[in-house]
Amino acid sequence: MADCVFCRIIAGQAPATVYYRDDQVIAFQDIRPVAPVHILIVPIKHIESINAMSEEDKPLIGHLFWVARQLAVQHGIAESGYRSIINTGRDAGQAVFHLHLHIIGGQRVRYPMG
Amino acid sequence: MADCVFCRIIAGQAPATVYYRDDQVIAFQDIRPVAPVHILIVPIKHIESINAMSEEDKPLIGHLFWVARQLAVQHGIAESGYRSIINTGRDAGQAVFHLHLHIIGGQRVRYPMG
Repeated sequence: MADCVFCRIIAGQAPATVYYRDDQVIAFQDIRPVAPVHILIVPIKHIESINAMSEEDKPLIGHLFWVARQLAVQHGIAESGYRSIINTGRDAGQAVFHLHLHIIGGQRVRYPMG
Repeated sequence: MADCVFCRIIAGQAPATVYYRDDQVIAFQDIRPVAPVHILIVPIKHIESINAMSEEDKPLIGHLFWVARQLAVQHGIAESGYRSIINTGRDAGQAVFHLHLHIIGGQRVRYPMG
Protein backbone atom coordinates (compact mmCIF):
# COMPACT_ATOMS: atom_id res chain seq x y z
CA MET A 1 0.00 0.00 0.00
CA ALA A 2 1.66 3.19 -1.24
CA ASP A 3 0.28 5.37 1.55
CA CYS A 4 1.37 3.02 4.39
CA VAL A 5 4.64 4.00 6.07
CA PHE A 6 5.31 0.41 7.19
CA CYS A 7 4.77 -0.91 3.65
CA ARG A 8 7.25 1.74 2.48
CA ILE A 9 9.80 0.57 5.08
CA ILE A 10 9.24 -3.05 3.96
CA ALA A 11 9.81 -1.98 0.34
CA GLY A 12 13.00 -0.12 1.28
CA GLN A 13 11.43 3.20 0.35
CA ALA A 14 11.46 4.70 3.85
CA PRO A 15 14.31 4.57 6.37
CA ALA A 16 14.35 2.40 9.49
CA THR A 17 16.85 0.80 11.85
CA VAL A 18 16.08 -2.80 10.92
CA TYR A 19 16.94 -5.49 13.49
CA TYR A 20 15.48 -8.55 11.80
CA ARG A 21 13.74 -9.66 8.64
CA ASP A 22 12.40 -12.92 7.23
CA ASP A 23 9.76 -13.83 4.64
CA GLN A 24 6.91 -13.13 7.09
CA VAL A 25 7.96 -10.19 9.29
CA ILE A 26 10.28 -7.23 9.66
CA ALA A 27 11.48 -5.75 12.98
CA PHE A 28 12.82 -2.23 13.41
CA GLN A 29 13.33 0.44 16.05
CA ASP A 30 10.31 2.62 16.92
CA ILE A 31 11.06 6.18 15.80
CA ARG A 32 9.65 7.51 19.10
CA PRO A 33 10.98 5.02 21.65
CA VAL A 34 9.30 5.10 25.06
CA ALA A 35 12.02 2.97 26.71
CA PRO A 36 15.68 1.99 26.11
CA VAL A 37 14.47 -0.91 23.95
CA HIS A 38 11.40 -0.26 21.79
CA ILE A 39 11.08 -2.51 18.76
CA LEU A 40 8.20 -2.87 16.31
CA ILE A 41 7.58 -6.29 14.77
CA VAL A 42 5.46 -5.98 11.65
CA PRO A 43 4.01 -8.58 9.28
CA ILE A 44 5.15 -8.14 5.67
CA LYS A 45 1.52 -8.72 4.68
CA HIS A 46 -0.53 -5.54 5.09
CA ILE A 47 -3.13 -6.40 7.76
CA GLU A 48 -4.77 -3.26 9.16
CA SER A 49 -5.26 -4.46 12.71
CA ILE A 50 -6.29 -7.42 14.86
CA ASN A 51 -9.88 -6.64 13.77
CA ALA A 52 -8.80 -7.42 10.20
CA MET A 53 -6.92 -10.66 10.91
CA SER A 54 -8.32 -13.85 9.44
CA GLU A 55 -8.19 -17.32 10.96
CA GLU A 56 -5.36 -18.29 8.61
CA ASP A 57 -3.25 -15.47 10.09
CA LYS A 58 -2.97 -17.23 13.46
CA PRO A 59 0.50 -18.75 12.83
CA LEU A 60 1.69 -15.36 11.53
CA ILE A 61 0.54 -13.58 14.71
CA GLY A 62 2.27 -16.29 16.74
CA HIS A 63 5.40 -15.76 14.67
CA LEU A 64 5.49 -12.08 15.71
CA PHE A 65 5.89 -13.28 19.31
CA TRP A 66 8.36 -15.99 18.35
CA VAL A 67 10.54 -13.28 16.78
CA ALA A 68 9.94 -11.04 19.83
CA ARG A 69 11.31 -13.79 22.04
CA GLN A 70 14.54 -14.02 19.99
CA LEU A 71 14.95 -10.23 19.80
CA ALA A 72 14.44 -9.92 23.57
CA VAL A 73 17.41 -12.26 24.05
CA GLN A 74 19.52 -10.36 21.52
CA HIS A 75 18.73 -7.00 23.15
CA GLY A 76 19.43 -8.28 26.66
CA ILE A 77 15.89 -7.87 28.02
CA ALA A 78 14.65 -11.48 28.07
CA GLU A 79 15.48 -11.96 31.75
CA SER A 80 14.73 -8.42 32.96
CA GLY A 81 11.40 -8.44 31.13
CA TYR A 82 9.43 -6.66 28.44
CA ARG A 83 5.89 -5.52 27.65
CA SER A 84 4.35 -6.60 24.32
CA ILE A 85 1.51 -4.41 23.00
CA ILE A 86 -0.74 -4.46 19.95
CA ASN A 87 -3.01 -1.40 19.74
CA THR A 88 -6.26 -1.72 17.79
CA GLY A 89 -8.27 1.33 16.80
CA ARG A 90 -8.92 4.77 18.22
CA ASP A 91 -9.31 4.07 21.95
CA ALA A 92 -5.96 2.26 21.98
CA GLY A 93 -4.21 5.03 20.09
CA GLN A 94 -3.30 2.93 17.06
CA ALA A 95 -1.26 5.35 14.95
CA VAL A 96 -0.37 3.27 11.87
CA PHE A 97 -3.04 1.04 10.37
CA HIS A 98 -0.68 -1.78 9.52
CA LEU A 99 -0.72 -4.28 12.38
CA HIS A 100 2.40 -4.05 14.58
CA LEU A 101 3.66 -5.52 17.83
CA HIS A 102 5.51 -3.18 20.23
CA ILE A 103 8.26 -4.75 22.36
CA ILE A 104 9.18 -2.41 25.20
CA GLY A 105 11.93 -3.06 27.75
CA GLY A 106 15.19 -2.02 29.32
CA GLN A 107 13.50 -0.32 32.25
CA ARG A 108 10.69 -1.03 34.68
CA VAL A 109 7.32 -0.08 33.11
CA ARG A 110 6.26 3.34 34.41
CA TYR A 111 2.51 3.27 33.75
CA PRO A 112 -0.51 1.07 34.43
CA MET A 113 -1.83 -0.87 31.45
CA GLY A 114 -5.11 0.97 30.86
CA MET B 1 0.16 -26.71 38.32
CA ALA B 2 -1.38 -26.73 41.78
CA ASP B 3 0.16 -23.41 42.82
CA CYS B 4 -0.91 -21.51 39.69
CA VAL B 5 -4.10 -19.46 40.09
CA PHE B 6 -4.88 -19.62 36.37
CA CYS B 7 -4.50 -23.42 36.34
CA ARG B 8 -6.90 -23.50 39.29
CA ILE B 9 -9.43 -21.37 37.36
CA ILE B 10 -9.05 -23.69 34.35
CA ALA B 11 -9.68 -26.68 36.62
CA GLY B 12 -12.77 -25.04 38.12
CA GLN B 13 -11.08 -24.83 41.52
CA ALA B 14 -10.95 -21.02 41.72
CA PRO B 15 -13.74 -18.58 40.81
CA ALA B 16 -13.76 -16.41 37.69
CA THR B 17 -16.25 -14.65 35.45
CA VAL B 18 -15.66 -16.79 32.36
CA TYR B 19 -16.57 -15.28 28.98
CA TYR B 20 -15.28 -17.98 26.65
CA ARG B 21 -13.67 -21.40 26.66
CA ASP B 22 -12.52 -23.88 24.04
CA ASP B 23 -9.99 -26.72 24.02
CA GLN B 24 -7.04 -24.32 23.74
CA VAL B 25 -7.90 -21.20 25.77
CA ILE B 26 -10.09 -19.73 28.48
CA ALA B 27 -11.12 -16.06 28.75
CA PHE B 28 -12.30 -14.39 31.94
CA GLN B 29 -12.63 -10.97 33.56
CA ASP B 30 -9.50 -9.53 35.21
CA ILE B 31 -10.15 -9.33 38.95
CA ARG B 32 -8.60 -5.83 39.03
CA PRO B 33 -9.96 -4.23 35.84
CA VAL B 34 -8.16 -1.08 34.69
CA ALA B 35 -10.92 -0.16 32.18
CA PRO B 36 -14.64 -0.91 31.59
CA VAL B 37 -13.60 -3.98 29.59
CA HIS B 38 -10.58 -5.92 30.86
CA ILE B 39 -10.43 -9.54 29.78
CA LEU B 40 -7.65 -12.09 30.21
CA ILE B 41 -7.20 -14.73 27.52
CA VAL B 42 -5.17 -17.64 28.83
CA PRO B 43 -3.89 -20.82 27.16
CA ILE B 44 -5.12 -24.00 28.86
CA LYS B 45 -1.53 -25.27 28.56
CA HIS B 46 0.66 -23.88 31.34
CA ILE B 47 3.29 -21.78 29.55
CA GLU B 48 5.11 -19.45 31.95
CA SER B 49 5.64 -16.56 29.59
CA ILE B 50 6.61 -15.61 26.05
CA ASN B 51 10.18 -16.50 27.06
CA ALA B 52 8.98 -20.08 27.58
CA MET B 53 6.99 -20.44 24.35
CA SER B 54 8.21 -22.99 21.82
CA GLU B 55 7.98 -22.76 18.06
CA GLU B 56 5.04 -25.18 18.03
CA ASP B 57 3.09 -22.74 20.23
CA LYS B 58 2.85 -20.17 17.41
CA PRO B 59 -0.70 -21.15 16.31
CA LEU B 60 -1.79 -21.14 19.97
CA ILE B 61 -0.47 -17.60 20.50
CA GLY B 62 -2.25 -16.56 17.30
CA HIS B 63 -5.42 -18.19 18.61
CA LEU B 64 -5.32 -15.94 21.70
CA PHE B 65 -5.66 -12.95 19.35
CA TRP B 66 -8.28 -14.69 17.21
CA VAL B 67 -10.38 -15.14 20.36
CA ALA B 68 -9.60 -11.54 21.38
CA ARG B 69 -11.02 -10.35 18.08
CA GLN B 70 -14.32 -12.22 18.67
CA LEU B 71 -14.58 -11.08 22.30
CA ALA B 72 -13.95 -7.45 21.27
CA VAL B 73 -17.01 -7.69 18.99
CA GLN B 74 -19.11 -9.33 21.71
CA HIS B 75 -18.13 -6.67 24.26
CA GLY B 76 -18.79 -3.78 21.87
CA ILE B 77 -15.19 -2.53 21.70
CA ALA B 78 -14.11 -3.77 18.25
CA GLU B 79 -14.85 -0.45 16.53
CA SER B 80 -13.91 1.88 19.42
CA GLY B 81 -10.65 0.01 19.94
CA TYR B 82 -8.67 -1.97 22.50
CA ARG B 83 -5.14 -2.46 23.73
CA SER B 84 -3.71 -6.02 23.83
CA ILE B 85 -0.84 -6.63 26.24
CA ILE B 86 1.33 -9.59 27.21
CA ASN B 87 3.71 -8.82 30.07
CA THR B 88 6.89 -10.89 30.37
CA GLY B 89 9.00 -10.84 33.52
CA ARG B 90 9.81 -8.34 36.23
CA ASP B 91 10.28 -5.11 34.27
CA ALA B 92 6.87 -5.58 32.64
CA GLY B 93 5.17 -6.32 35.96
CA GLN B 94 4.11 -9.87 35.06
CA ALA B 95 2.10 -10.92 38.12
CA VAL B 96 1.03 -14.48 37.27
CA PHE B 97 3.58 -16.75 35.62
CA HIS B 98 1.08 -18.44 33.34
CA LEU B 99 1.11 -16.61 29.99
CA HIS B 100 -1.95 -14.35 29.53
CA LEU B 101 -3.16 -11.75 27.08
CA HIS B 102 -4.85 -8.63 28.48
CA ILE B 103 -7.60 -7.06 26.36
CA ILE B 104 -8.35 -3.54 27.59
CA GLY B 105 -11.05 -1.28 26.17
CA GLY B 106 -14.23 0.70 26.70
CA GLN B 107 -12.39 3.96 27.24
CA ARG B 108 -9.56 5.88 25.65
CA VAL B 109 -6.19 4.61 26.99
CA ARG B 110 -4.97 6.98 29.70
CA TYR B 111 -1.25 6.19 29.75
CA PRO B 112 1.69 5.94 27.36
CA MET B 113 2.89 2.45 26.54
CA GLY B 114 6.22 2.46 28.39
